[in-house]
Amino acid sequence: MPDPLLFTPGPLTTSASVKAAMQRDLGSRSPEFIELVAGIRAELLNIAGVSQKSGYEVVLMQGSGTFAIEAVFSSVIPPEGRLLVLANGAYGERMLQIAERLKIATSIQRWPENESPDAETVRRLLNADSAPTHVAIVHLETTTGILNPIDEIEKIVREHRCQFIVDAMSSFGGVAIDLAALQADYLVSSANKCLEGVPGFSYVLARREALESTLGYARNVSLDLLAQWHGLERDSQFRFTPPTHALLAFAQALKEFREEGGVAARARRYRANREVLLAGMRRIGFREYLAPERQSDIITSFRYPEDPAFDFAEFYRLLAARGMVIYPGKVSNADCFRIGTIGRISPDQVHALIAEVGNVVDRMGLKMLP
Amino acid sequence: MPDPLLFTPGPLTTSASVKAAMQRDLGSRSPEFIELVAGIRAELLNIAGVSQKSGYEVVLMQGSGTFAIEAVFSSVIPPEGRLLVLANGAYGERMLQIAERLKIATSIQRWPENESPDAETVRRLLNADSAPTHVAIVHLETTTGILNPIDEIEKIVREHRCQFIVDAMSSFGGVAIDLAALQADYLVSSANKCLEGVPGFSYVLARREALESTLGYARNVSLDLLAQWHGLERDSQFRFTPPTHALLAFAQALKEFREEGGVAARARRYRANREVLLAGMRRIGFREYLAPERQSDIITSFRYPEDPAFDFAEFYRLLAARGMVIYPGKVSNADCFRIGTIGRISPDQVHALIAEVGNVVDRMGLKMLP
Repeated sequence: MPDPLLFTPGPLTTSASVKAAMQRDLGSRSPEFIELVAGIRAELLNIAGVSQKSGYEVVLMQGSGTFAIEAVFSSVIPPEGRLLVLANGAYGERMLQIAERLKIATSIQRWPENESPDAETVRRLLNADSAPTHVAIVHLETTTGILNPIDEIEKIVREHRCQFIVDAMSSFGGVAIDLAALQADYLVSSANKCLEGVPGFSYVLARREALESTLGYARNVSLDLLAQWHGLERDSQFRFTPPTHALLAFAQALKEFREEGGVAARARRYRANREVLLAGMRRIGFREYLAPERQSDIITSFRYPEDPAFDFAEFYRLLAARGMVIYPGKVSNADCFRIGTIGRISPDQVHALIAEVGNVVDRMGLKMLP
Repeated sequence: MPDPLLFTPGPLTTSASVKAAMQRDLGSRSPEFIELVAGIRAELLNIAGVSQKSGYEVVLMQGSGTFAIEAVFSSVIPPEGRLLVLANGAYGERMLQIAERLKIATSIQRWPENESPDAETVRRLLNADSAPTHVAIVHLETTTGILNPIDEIEKIVREHRCQFIVDAMSSFGGVAIDLAALQADYLVSSANKCLEGVPGFSYVLARREALESTLGYARNVSLDLLAQWHGLERDSQFRFTPPTHALLAFAQALKEFREEGGVAARARRYRANREVLLAGMRRIGFREYLAPERQSDIITSFRYPEDPAFDFAEFYRLLAARGMVIYPGKVSNADCFRIGTIGRISPDQVHALIAEVGNVVDRMGLKMLP
């Protein structure tokens, strides 16, 4: 039986050629590896529409996306800094948890999980006494799939001379981000999301002037963003052992990203995937959690059916047995599950998923909405 | 041209079947992956000669070995704790750097890089005023290849009721460690060393009673050892995205480790590799840095030849062009390079390396010692 398709927010289904790129052992100090790392770094800037010339740098960091978020918080916020987190989901809450653990003076403004942070509230908060020095937001909350208006909010943050930290984990590469226009100070994403690599490292796009001003702030060694950048700049080497195979896979994933046609083409495929998903799930009788205008094409939260016979564990198991892996929900005030539409997945495969969802609903004897 | 052989301390040459195990995408919450993680954790305890029954636990951590060392320091030493680092090389010095960055009250006792920490000095230090609460040492200093006497030192540390933290990065799986006898509180190693996996994560074997007493100490979220353990114990899941492919490779590497005959067989192969290396290099006219009785079979530091025509970069390049990757030196007071004898490498391949070293010495026209 072939491996199941992963309709998840990552680790996700990657192409056979991305996985095949890992059939090698490269020395972490070999010229070929050094060139590979340099190429990956240049390409990531390119995807964001920036360059070293335009003042941006990229820092690769071992570990999951959360490691890179913590690398930013623990490395760039000065001891006397004040962080404001704009949150409408679990990843915003995780930002608060990280900042508090690091003993950074932090406040959080929460919005309901089906609404986005709004510019007016942010303006009010930034006009208040003891206004923050840094503002952090999640671009695409994987909790629900909601896409937050980082462009509008960035303008206000910039007016108030705060630094802007964007978690673009689930959006970078799959949603157009013009960093040259946005001018975020730090934008964080991960290898195993819309760029369709395998997990093992994450990366931070940083405005050089901001990054260079952080000397002495890092609260730990492993996640020291400035030192990691200095190491990569010096000789394109990581300070500590890099995940060589995940980097080989990522270089191949970037090649396939270019061949597909970059962000625009990838966003089109994800949109096509999501349209098949939404039409199919609605036809079966599922309802999505978010209002359509707030919904991204990356991941969708669906409400549990009202039929009390619905059991998510059983639903998941039956789908997995048919080669289709979905994802549990994370919304705090509603029972949901999630289906991702990213990775090496085509609309045909989403049609196949829908067919199996229908079979499983029948098998479970669920009464669905008309 | 096939990939070069890596005579390095890792990332190293792995078997084709270990790399082939990465030709799959597993969901990080799928039952198969959960079972895989549980199997890896049980096997790591088994290799150390301990079990949950005998009071040990294992925590897997994303990132390189340094991440796991920092995870231990930042998670298990209380705010009022005092750390003593016993150092005879660069990885001992890195321990100091990490502890100081974390603002842990730390002292360091240094030995020359060609000598080991000795029990009498440690006893004297532990009898002094404001004795430490935690003592940390590197088992096998990759800087030189020296093997430090952790058993003797552990006895003294235990007598003084200190906690004992051992960096067994380059030794675990290739040098017999009887953790049931040693009773170290924390022993740290990495996937891409003597167990011959690919890089991407590391692990900590922890005495449960010690680990359980650390609630509230963690200074950051990503490297929170206790929280990571709780997550793995709850449902064999990582708190944050795991490197699924590196874990697939590691499960296969552990299978091949068992089939080879465990630590004893692996240590024999590494010894055979090192004997071929030493005889061959001496015959060509190279001299090793360490006295033979201090030298491990894992990695060997060789002094640069006295001929001023020797240029390491050129030597490295010519060997790499012949498919043999060696490693730069790290000794602070002598010019050395290093050759590792771990990974999926056999004595035949070390013979091939020696032949190429001879060719390169001839090609460079080096005058060598008789």
